[in-house]
Amino acid sequence: MTKLVGRERTVVARICDGILDLIKTKELGLGDRLPSEERLVEDFGVARPTLREALKILEQDGIIRTEHGRGRFVMAGAALHIERPITTFESVTDMVEGYGYSTTTQLLKLTEMAADDEIASGLQCLSGTPVLRIERLRSEGTRPILYSIDFIKAETAGNAISTIDWSGSLVQILRRRGVAPVASTANVSATLLPADAVKHWKLADFGPVLLVTETCFTAEGTPILFAKDYHHGKYFTFSFARR
Amino acid sequence: MTKLVGRERTVVARICDGILDLIKTKELGLGDRLPSEERLVEDFGVARPTLREALKILEQDGIIRTEHGRGRFVMAGAALHIERPITTFESVTDMVEGYGYSTTTQLLKLTEMAADDEIASGLQCLSGTPVLRIERLRSEGTRPILYSIDFIKAETAGNAISTIDWSGSLVQILRRRGVAPVASTANVSATLLPADAVKHWKLADFGPVLLVTETCFTAEGTPILFAKDYHHGKYFTFSFARR
Repeated sequence: MTKLVGRERTVVARICDGILDLIKTKELGLGDRLPSEERLVEDFGVARPTLREALKILEQDGIIRTEHGRGRFVMAGAALHIERPITTFESVTDMVEGYGYSTTTQLLKLTEMAADDEIASGLQCLSGTPVLRIERLRSEGTRPILYSIDFIKAETAGNAISTIDWSGSLVQILRRRGVAPVASTANVSATLLPADAVKHWKLADFGPVLLVTETCFTAEGTPILFAKDYHHGKYFTFSFARR
Repeated sequence: MTKLVGRERTVVARICDGILDLIKTKELGLGDRLPSEERLVEDFGVARPTLREALKILEQDGIIRTEHGRGRFVMAGAALHIERPITTFESVTDMVEGYGYSTTTQLLKLTEMAADDEIASGLQCLSGTPVLRIERLRSEGTRPILYSIDFIKAETAGNAISTIDWSGSLVQILRRRGVAPVASTANVSATLLPADAVKHWKLADFGPVLLVTETCFTAEGTPILFAKDYHHGKYFTFSFARR
């Protein structure tokens, strides 16, 4: 779903959710006409431009279609609405909380190193560029469920490297430094934990993992974070619509 | 990317690809203004409404933005363009070919059975509904790389069950029966092959798999296919943008 910010997001998102609820509870079915704009403005208690913004988002997402002069209708795409799609950018912290897990994050190791080819490609910088390697483990109680290695350019942390709490949300840390990641390109694969991590941190019983490798960008399109998140196969599954 | 059909798709997709190429080859950078409509109409040799359709798609995908009176500009979303995203619906056959694999499909077993709760939920039908279970294995040479179990309602196959070549593309089979799947809701997880499949078909060395569980819908929003595809972890990785 299209990203909005602040209060605007709240009101528009509330209208979208309200209309999706009507579809989910079957008050509105496939091909049904939506109530008039006048009616929706009244029901939701919002201004007409705000309502229209919400309807535009639902149209872009293939949930409804507009027939000029006839009104708006529920489309087949409504069947494709996903509650928490993998295609919505969010911090790992928010994602894990969204699953209902209450985890603690342990900083395993913070290293300054020179970018190898993989990291350079992930951060779109030259090989050899100084980067920070942030190796962490999230656990639900005593059970480790998410092992991650994140890379940022050393210059991104600057002098703050020793004052930053690296067990906090990395997205939050970057936001505070004025370089909030807002989008990413990612890929997902199935694998096992890296052998050295298993050995070093005694993670032998982790099993198959869902590895999400991700380059995160600021709103200006600058690559700011290269992340490798190893999700415990039994604890995570990601949803998406295909069309 | 928004779905179009037939010739319209071809021309509009060609314009989109052309503009994306300009961005990829850095002829157009972040924040740059696109050439005028007049110029693009001439360059691509297309009608203005067709060009506008393509520009609308690029705008919806966050690749460009329109500033009224000023022109169109390359947006941060351009960095997020993915060649073959997991969010584009395609048949497994097309997907596997897209990877450059040349596979053979073996029908392991075709069974008529009553839908259990999982299948009923996947096909959005009642438990006990007669369904066909289609168990198959795709191999690249002698190496099995994709094990799948597909379910369709028995009524979808009707009397044709014994005449259909079940080793062919299931999307193609359904298309020929007038119920082409065009979209889906899916989730992805990391797991191992089902123990009974490993035992029965001697697949012990398969390792971690990327399991995509998917309900496919017709254009009318009817669930027509419930698929469980177990992708060999070493042979498949899926890409997507998050925003």
